[in-house]
Amino acid sequence: MYKEISIDTKQLLNSIEEFSSFGKTEKNGVTRLALSRADVEVREHFRKVCESIGMVLTYDDIGNMYGTLAGKNNDIPPIVMGSHLDTVEKGGKFDGSIGIIIGIEVVRALVKNNITPEMPITVVNFTNEEGARFEPAMMSSGILAGQFDKDEMFTSSDSKGVTFKDALKKSGFQGMISNRLNKATAFIELHIEQGPVLETESLQIGIVDGVVGMVNYEIEVMGESNHAGTTPMHLRKDALFTTIDLIKKLRTNLDELDNELVYTIGRMNITPNIHTVIPNKVVFTIEARHKDENVINKVESILNLLDIELNDIKIKKQWGRNTVDFNEEIVNKIEVITKRLEYSYKKITSGAGHDAQFISTYIPTAMIFIPSVNGISHSEKELTLEKDCIAGANVLLQTVLDIVVN
Amino acid sequence: MYKEISIDTKQLLNSIEEFSSFGKTEKNGVTRLALSRADVEVREHFRKVCESIGMVLTYDDIGNMYGTLAGKNNDIPPIVMGSHLDTVEKGGKFDGSIGIIIGIEVVRALVKNNITPEMPITVVNFTNEEGARFEPAMMSSGILAGQFDKDEMFTSSDSKGVTFKDALKKSGFQGMISNRLNKATAFIELHIEQGPVLETESLQIGIVDGVVGMVNYEIEVMGESNHAGTTPMHLRKDALFTTIDLIKKLRTNLDELDNELVYTIGRMNITPNIHTVIPNKVVFTIEARHKDENVINKVESILNLLDIELNDIKIKKQWGRNTVDFNEEIVNKIEVITKRLEYSYKKITSGAGHDAQFISTYIPTAMIFIPSVNGISHSEKELTLEKDCIAGANVLLQTVLDIVVN
Repeated sequence: MYKEISIDTKQLLNSIEEFSSFGKTEKNGVTRLALSRADVEVREHFRKVCESIGMVLTYDDIGNMYGTLAGKNNDIPPIVMGSHLDTVEKGGKFDGSIGIIIGIEVVRALVKNNITPEMPITVVNFTNEEGARFEPAMMSSGILAGQFDKDEMFTSSDSKGVTFKDALKKSGFQGMISNRLNKATAFIELHIEQGPVLETESLQIGIVDGVVGMVNYEIEVMGESNHAGTTPMHLRKDALFTTIDLIKKLRTNLDELDNELVYTIGRMNITPNIHTVIPNKVVFTIEARHKDENVINKVESILNLLDIELNDIKIKKQWGRNTVDFNEEIVNKIEVITKRLEYSYKKITSGAGHDAQFISTYIPTAMIFIPSVNGISHSEKELTLEKDCIAGANVLLQTVLDIVVN
Repeated sequence: MYKEISIDTKQLLNSIEEFSSFGKTEKNGVTRLALSRADVEVREHFRKVCESIGMVLTYDDIGNMYGTLAGKNNDIPPIVMGSHLDTVEKGGKFDGSIGIIIGIEVVRALVKNNITPEMPITVVNFTNEEGARFEPAMMSSGILAGQFDKDEMFTSSDSKGVTFKDALKKSGFQGMISNRLNKATAFIELHIEQGPVLETESLQIGIVDGVVGMVNYEIEVMGESNHAGTTPMHLRKDALFTTIDLIKKLRTNLDELDNELVYTIGRMNITPNIHTVIPNKVVFTIEARHKDENVINKVESILNLLDIELNDIKIKKQWGRNTVDFNEEIVNKIEVITKRLEYSYKKITSGAGHDAQFISTYIPTAMIFIPSVNGISHSEKELTLEKDCIAGANVLLQTVLDIVVN
């Protein structure tokens, strides 16, 4: 019914450039590690922009920022949009930021059209989503959801030994615990896909129904370090060659499970890692993701079988998460609106973790994905096309309007 | 004919303990990086021990130390024994040191028995054989043999930025260029095997006829870094999985060549090496050794074929060395003596590099190996049994006697 209202696209595109100027890298990417100088500067910018369109800014005890436009009835819990402004080292300008920028533009569209929402509308900036400076990722949404212990998180320190606690205090963005996001009518996080599925299938919108479950293991393979020149092949116990045989076997077994299973060996360290010494130890991680927990269980069985079949191997589960299902009602609402706006779309289960997965444990939540060119993120090459940003913004605007206007 | 003369075994075993006290580690190993404090201290000890039995100490411009016992005719070039006193980080007490310690004991046996050799006898301590603090290995024998450029070597610096030149100057062991080892009747380096062959075949002595040729390559495999959670398996370009397939294929091809071929992938680095990111680059080294250069040529053909067959791969030859043949006359002399002393032995081609390989380019050279327990070296677990040290000492003594006494 408010279809005639739309996003100011010129303003949106300007806004993307403005936000990306904080921590801009030479190759047009962004480095804005959590609570770094660039992050503090973009937080100031966020505050000013929100205030300029009549929102009130608050911060909670973890540095989460909330820009809130008052509604007709402020006793109704707010509708919340947003994501995170921090980035990895040499990341892109869309990951996280676009959810906040579009959130602001949705509010601006309401204000411009003199629409007072039924309930307050909030745009949130979650502190330290990336975990690139202070581990773990999604730190503050995890604290909000009671998944992480605040005291423990506050001791997390960066590579220079600075704790999260000290960095937060120094930033000037630490507020009161009473400002935390506790209740909301809905939380909708718009984010780039960070994968190639939408682009490959020529779709503009991903309607995210949840986040896939995953497990993460560390595997250590032992061997014996001997001199590379003096030890005949048949007398060697080469930890790297054992590892390679092991991974070949693992891949054969895992590839048989399900074609939607993804698994990655992202980290591998060889000891002593000297070209003239036979490796005596290899440690590698393997993580696997799938929305069906039965498939994940099968992955774990395959990994644990290695432990039984092989000597000189240690298998350690580091962590896992169950599949998170988002709120069906909101997901359906987004689908109806996307259809109405005639954007091409598909329902998708996020393979990546997002603040929304923690928030969804206590607030009705959903996500909207927009395509990543070549599926690339966490890179200066990260790109989302203008038309896709605009499509995402219009879907979010109409979804919010559908909720906040009677 | 001097068979009645033998090594003072008690003195030999004491001497091993004394030398190993410099830079001794908690686990009974030795850390004596070239020109470190511990290395300077053991050099002082070497000087004192040599002087205590009537040898004259000189140092050359690269810090090589020469303890020399005068002969009847000092115009005849000396017979030279020795090796190196430096070690790797947490190395053993035999690697290098045993060749010097036994050299001293050979001289002591002559002095004790009032035998004046025909020609001078020298025990040499080569500076920085390991290359563990200052690359490359065998630095000063390489300079002596004209294989390395002295000025370039002097700029080699350790992990703290200290140059070899400065460390040498500070050590107090830099002498005159005129003291260099230029001519000699023979050079015999006694060394631990650093491999398992002698022990596996229950032999006491290895008569080393040369050093195997080798090649060393670096291979870079490119992929694309995408998010581990959001990129379906069939859309990935995983540099690690490509590498693993490649290594499997390489191993199949190399294993067919010759069962004396040894090859090692000792160093492998994965980028970005983050557990949630698909690797976009893997760089690994492969080195291969064999005494027959035809086999090495075949290895190189197999490696270079990869370059033709595969995209996204860079193959770079880092260096190689041809097989070095030691002096046949000295090798045969050692064999005759070993037989006469009734020690079990085999002729062996060294898989490891030694100072002797450079010295052999201008001085008649050979080596004697004694067994390494479990083939282990460059480790605190390095061990050579007393009986084997004694056997090696007696072979060296009788070989030297055969040369220096008419």
